[in-house]
Amino acid sequence: MIENTEKEGITSVHDRWMQRCIDLAKQGRGQTAPNPMVGSVIIKNGQVLGEGFHPKAGEPHAEVFAIRAAQQTGVDLSDATLYVNLEPCNHYGRTPPCSEAIIQAGIGKVVVGAIDADPRVSGSGCDRLRSAGVQVTTGILEQQCLELNEAFFHRVKTNLPLGIFKYAMTLDGKIATISGHSYWITGQESRKLVHDLRLGCDAIITGGNTVRLDNPHLTTHGLSKHCPLRVVVTKSFNLPEEANLWNLTDTERTLVMTLPHQNDQLKQKLSDRHVEILELEDLSPQIVMQELANRGCNQVLWECGGRLGAAAIKAQMVQKIYAFIAPKLIGGFAAPSPIDDLGLNLMTEALNLVNPKLQQIGTDFLIIGNL
Amino acid sequence: MIENTEKEGITSVHDRWMQRCIDLAKQGRGQTAPNPMVGSVIIKNGQVLGEGFHPKAGEPHAEVFAIRAAQQTGVDLSDATLYVNLEPCNHYGRTPPCSEAIIQAGIGKVVVGAIDADPRVSGSGCDRLRSAGVQVTTGILEQQCLELNEAFFHRVKTNLPLGIFKYAMTLDGKIATISGHSYWITGQESRKLVHDLRLGCDAIITGGNTVRLDNPHLTTHGLSKHCPLRVVVTKSFNLPEEANLWNLTDTERTLVMTLPHQNDQLKQKLSDRHVEILELEDLSPQIVMQELANRGCNQVLWECGGRLGAAAIKAQMVQKIYAFIAPKLIGGFAAPSPIDDLGLNLMTEALNLVNPKLQQIGTDFLIIGNL
Repeated sequence: MIENTEKEGITSVHDRWMQRCIDLAKQGRGQTAPNPMVGSVIIKNGQVLGEGFHPKAGEPHAEVFAIRAAQQTGVDLSDATLYVNLEPCNHYGRTPPCSEAIIQAGIGKVVVGAIDADPRVSGSGCDRLRSAGVQVTTGILEQQCLELNEAFFHRVKTNLPLGIFKYAMTLDGKIATISGHSYWITGQESRKLVHDLRLGCDAIITGGNTVRLDNPHLTTHGLSKHCPLRVVVTKSFNLPEEANLWNLTDTERTLVMTLPHQNDQLKQKLSDRHVEILELEDLSPQIVMQELANRGCNQVLWECGGRLGAAAIKAQMVQKIYAFIAPKLIGGFAAPSPIDDLGLNLMTEALNLVNPKLQQIGTDFLIIGNL
Repeated sequence: MIENTEKEGITSVHDRWMQRCIDLAKQGRGQTAPNPMVGSVIIKNGQVLGEGFHPKAGEPHAEVFAIRAAQQTGVDLSDATLYVNLEPCNHYGRTPPCSEAIIQAGIGKVVVGAIDADPRVSGSGCDRLRSAGVQVTTGILEQQCLELNEAFFHRVKTNLPLGIFKYAMTLDGKIATISGHSYWITGQESRKLVHDLRLGCDAIITGGNTVRLDNPHLTTHGLSKHCPLRVVVTKSFNLPEEANLWNLTDTERTLVMTLPHQNDQLKQKLSDRHVEILELEDLSPQIVMQELANRGCNQVLWECGGRLGAAAIKAQMVQKIYAFIAPKLIGGFAAPSPIDDLGLNLMTEALNLVNPKLQQIGTDFLIIGNL
């Protein structure tokens, strides 16, 4: 019985500090790509000696911040424990490997949430620590740690960003009225949650039609300085000369992906405003996402109409659905619905969401699930 | 403090027995129309002396069953309390007034949930009891008692049944695939809940198109012997000669409402199978609902396609929405959606649901709200 209690005691202590790592890691949300979100804390006798998180690619990893802080206390670290939600790296990238930093600091124990799926790390970080005599425990709050960096793991495994398709519809399945009017389907709380969802993404893809009809900003609306790269995918290049997306700042950038040999005058006008124009022979969702992976995106939001959305889903470039449902009826068979033809003729062929979760957001409902 | 505690004690006792009345009342669910659902219990010294519920129009009211049972105990009822969720009636209908039965039984106290909205009763039942020296308390679990008989109250106030529009759609707002296929959108638990919803209704309205395409049964599928009247509203009278709705039993009846001067041969065939044909010059939702009110319906379920559904909503013949949402995507702008044109051009004109409630039903979601 005493053993069990002790075990539970250790488990709950591990869980508590791993949760702290996750909370720290989230402070880098939306800014770490192509790196994962990582937080670290160093504990001795129940006291925090140091903590840190990875703020941005190119800057030090979480463990380094935590070690620096712990070393400043002057305390012996040989019986201290370093917690980190992701296996410490073991390779020279833009920064030296964290495994070496931990060993050099003489830290006795390391507790890891999830093993890194990056083939340059995957287990070797823990191996290196163990071979240097460090006591390593893994798998603490593993599910939460995996979910935290779901997009990073997806990109590492597939070389493509994780795709999220988000839409807002009425309770009768419409994203606009028969005349195309759509402001606002959902309430303020839902729109705020969308801004927060954007904050966690590295790019947002929309279509030319959405730019023409809705003239969106696609920013985080002051929630954070960070704004994902805004991407307009347009075959026609039939874009307005004035649009909110052409108003750039240091952080609010826009990339237009289009076919070659388009309207040179408009191209020049947009370029003059520092909008980047990328001409591609193939504008398929896969090519678009590959380009964004090359630019270091882990997580991409498809925030577009039903035609582009359907193309992305068909191309398997969407892994997650965010469906906001406003409890109102607008009517109209001809009013736009969220997803165009997926080539499915029988209801039994429908794409099921795995483990859909439901929340009430202000007056609206939100269903999130994986495809 | 003591007074407060006593008060709370009495309140919780009142609530408990009123809840018992509500539970008893529900045993008549779907079978009492045009009457309300009523349950009654007689208590003395914390013991139940008798209880009852109104099983069906034409049969005795709940109070009568409870009084009969209490009288059989031989106990003096002068200090007994009769609980009933709805004000006792005070008029001679198919049965003598319950107010007189209570007075004759010498019951000392009566506790009432909700005052009857029926103008033939509305307060006079309580007045009659008080004038005979009975101590009357009202408003116990009033909200629940009002909700229990929401449909009855609606019919009494408007002379029209309460209309419920029910539909099942995918998470992208479709009630069928682009080819029209719809079996099954929702899972077994949702379909069972629909059978239970039907059980609480007095009639189900569907359109000719649904009969042609889906050939539904529209029964309670064994949940109860009770089956609401199945109503087909069809202007064209273009109905199949064979359909599940033409298979009648003692309890499973079908009424076809159509325009005059239709296909006489089909009319004869359906009549031969005891399907009732009602020819009306006007088949508007209001006329259909008036006809059903005349037939004693309190609650009517619109279980139909989006065209008839939209007409019913526009005519304000729908007060309540049951929207089942299956977490799956089927796609297709041209795939049918739940509600056709409501004549609304701006999203700000959308019909809002009041106090929408959300439940998870097996793998599906259900949003219920009032228009």
